[in-house]
Amino acid sequence: MSHLIGELSPPVRLLCGTGPTNPDPRVLRAMGAPVLGQFDPAFTAIMTDVMELGRQVFRTVNPRTFAISGTGRAGMEAGIASLVEPGDRVLVANCGRFGDLFVDLATRYGGIVSQVTAEWGKVIDPQQIDAALQRTRPKIVAVVHGETSTGMLQPMLDEIGRTCRRHEALLVVDAVVTLGGMPVDTDAWQIDLGSAGTQKCIGCPSGMAPITYGARAEEVITSRKTPIISNYLDLAQLQRYWSPERLNHHTLPTSMTYGLHEALRLIVNEGLEARWTRHQRTGDALKAGLEAMGIQLFGDPKHRLPMITAMMLPEGVPDEEGRARLLEEFGVEVATSFGPLRGRIWRIGTMGYNAELRTVLTVLTALEHVLRSFYARVPRGAGVDEARRVYERAAS
Amino acid sequence: MSHLIGELSPPVRLLCGTGPTNPDPRVLRAMGAPVLGQFDPAFTAIMTDVMELGRQVFRTVNPRTFAISGTGRAGMEAGIASLVEPGDRVLVANCGRFGDLFVDLATRYGGIVSQVTAEWGKVIDPQQIDAALQRTRPKIVAVVHGETSTGMLQPMLDEIGRTCRRHEALLVVDAVVTLGGMPVDTDAWQIDLGSAGTQKCIGCPSGMAPITYGARAEEVITSRKTPIISNYLDLAQLQRYWSPERLNHHTLPTSMTYGLHEALRLIVNEGLEARWTRHQRTGDALKAGLEAMGIQLFGDPKHRLPMITAMMLPEGVPDEEGRARLLEEFGVEVATSFGPLRGRIWRIGTMGYNAELRTVLTVLTALEHVLRSFYARVPRGAGVDEARRVYERAAS
Repeated sequence: MSHLIGELSPPVRLLCGTGPTNPDPRVLRAMGAPVLGQFDPAFTAIMTDVMELGRQVFRTVNPRTFAISGTGRAGMEAGIASLVEPGDRVLVANCGRFGDLFVDLATRYGGIVSQVTAEWGKVIDPQQIDAALQRTRPKIVAVVHGETSTGMLQPMLDEIGRTCRRHEALLVVDAVVTLGGMPVDTDAWQIDLGSAGTQKCIGCPSGMAPITYGARAEEVITSRKTPIISNYLDLAQLQRYWSPERLNHHTLPTSMTYGLHEALRLIVNEGLEARWTRHQRTGDALKAGLEAMGIQLFGDPKHRLPMITAMMLPEGVPDEEGRARLLEEFGVEVATSFGPLRGRIWRIGTMGYNAELRTVLTVLTALEHVLRSFYARVPRGAGVDEARRVYERAAS
Repeated sequence: MSHLIGELSPPVRLLCGTGPTNPDPRVLRAMGAPVLGQFDPAFTAIMTDVMELGRQVFRTVNPRTFAISGTGRAGMEAGIASLVEPGDRVLVANCGRFGDLFVDLATRYGGIVSQVTAEWGKVIDPQQIDAALQRTRPKIVAVVHGETSTGMLQPMLDEIGRTCRRHEALLVVDAVVTLGGMPVDTDAWQIDLGSAGTQKCIGCPSGMAPITYGARAEEVITSRKTPIISNYLDLAQLQRYWSPERLNHHTLPTSMTYGLHEALRLIVNEGLEARWTRHQRTGDALKAGLEAMGIQLFGDPKHRLPMITAMMLPEGVPDEEGRARLLEEFGVEVATSFGPLRGRIWRIGTMGYNAELRTVLTVLTALEHVLRSFYARVPRGAGVDEARRVYERAAS
């Protein structure tokens, strides 16, 4: 016999892992709006708005700017699946788990992958990319803008973009963690295809992946010698669905599209610069607070992401038990990392609606109590005091 | 300069196309619940509930019962992408657009596809499948349970299941339109892999795809000679994410998962038999009402789906203009079809929350007025009277 399952009743958490973050309440409210059919003129108008809002947030004039009906990973895969043909050379700039994902995706779709790598916690030197381009002549260069696994920001995408143009390679960028939280200057940096996710700085629940690509990428996608293997992630078809042609494809996730529309609209209304500043100040305050508590930050100090802060776990504090205590006692979620960093660092996300001083003060307070409960030597109140000071100094 | 885009304000429609249907308001409400991190124990408990509820609705004990983070099409692709290796023989029972989709998917993933076909509006004779199995010895047989494009129900899946076992082929079933609206007896019919979508009889917005598969399919998936090409739709990975192992993969769409949880819970609480009866009675009443209006139904009368009713468009009524008038004047959405049937038939869905007499009465009233406005000879009131009579007779 079937057993009855009770009503859904998820607790309220402060989501400071690496995503999902807490959406603005207006985003969740928008998702409750009446459902429309996918070819209803009232719905196709919303799709058109999402495309226009997406262009503003990606800072591009690309007509091909829309969203994949899957998570950030689906957006990355749509790009690679649609651009890479078997035997194509792909160069991946790899210094973390999402670089690994690009390697995996390009390999699965038949690419001949070479890599420029850096140790986890460091970033890639653009000159290395230039040298590798000369050596391997790839069709595609894949770069992770914000490497969520390590908290590192890949610098000089503008220079990498110029290098790719010079070598006639396409630049594909994973902007999953950066879009909406710091500049992602698609056109100025000459990014040929960029994709993101909804559940990080965009501030929407997980489930869709904004994507944009220019004429050079579109030309490659529509003039392939071999068919695109995935149907669901086939950009050649999807771009005809997201256009006045309205080619029938899958049934767009209506409520997620509403959420994305509202999240992008809130970003544009706030103003991109204001939003980037908010993320930067919040991240700076968090990092300063952690250091004032005697906690060591992970990775190259020159290239830290504003929205993901990676801290070394103090000696003697158990990873899983520590995070469980944060969650159970304070309702605060933080994340560990993968592979070599699993259990060694915690990653604290301050993204979207949570990129505010109040988040930092709550997290630092909770951390102080939890770390002290495991006998770590953390001074009382120092983190909060310093975070507030840094945040307010930046405001003045 | 960016232009400001106004607040989302979609109108209320009665969605009687082929999906999305109007979700139960409780489903939309559940989607507004606080967002949780994907590895939060409170969230993994919800995933476990979704799996258990999915088993009840699919009528299976398959441990591998979960949901793909994409629409129904993504569920079908996950199955084919994970089962089919290049060179594998695949037999598709094809009598409509979703049979065509199986052919497309299997071909994209390297399958050698043969087909058993029937004219659109008819169904496949199971003996033809048996004969084709003997002839082509496929590894996989793909069957569309409810062919949404034509409104036809493929009968005798139990017999097809027995035939597949006898020939040691895997039976893959598209249950996108049928699951939650009529029996889909996964275990009794020996379906090896079945998938569905959320936006039809499950009664949730579009965006996830329930899936189930048994030990035989799992064995094929995990002992392939070639890697699965798609990462996002790789069942070998996804089954490890949807399990106590909690392998990190994509970030599950939290709010969609809440919606699916609530939608499945409402189905189980209503009772499967009661729900099937409700769909059948509603579809019968609609069909009787249409015939009383002098409207001809499309397709083989012995094999009509309860939840999708396909009617011939009366002479002289323009398709697009007619549907636009239904939408604008009555807020009622119906669908046309594809290919040879485009503009010739209208398809009326009565699914999930809308599988009620009130939907039928509203649709018939709106149809009567709109068809008459194009000078079709439709008697006043006859459709509603007959639909009410048929519905009430079935209740007594």
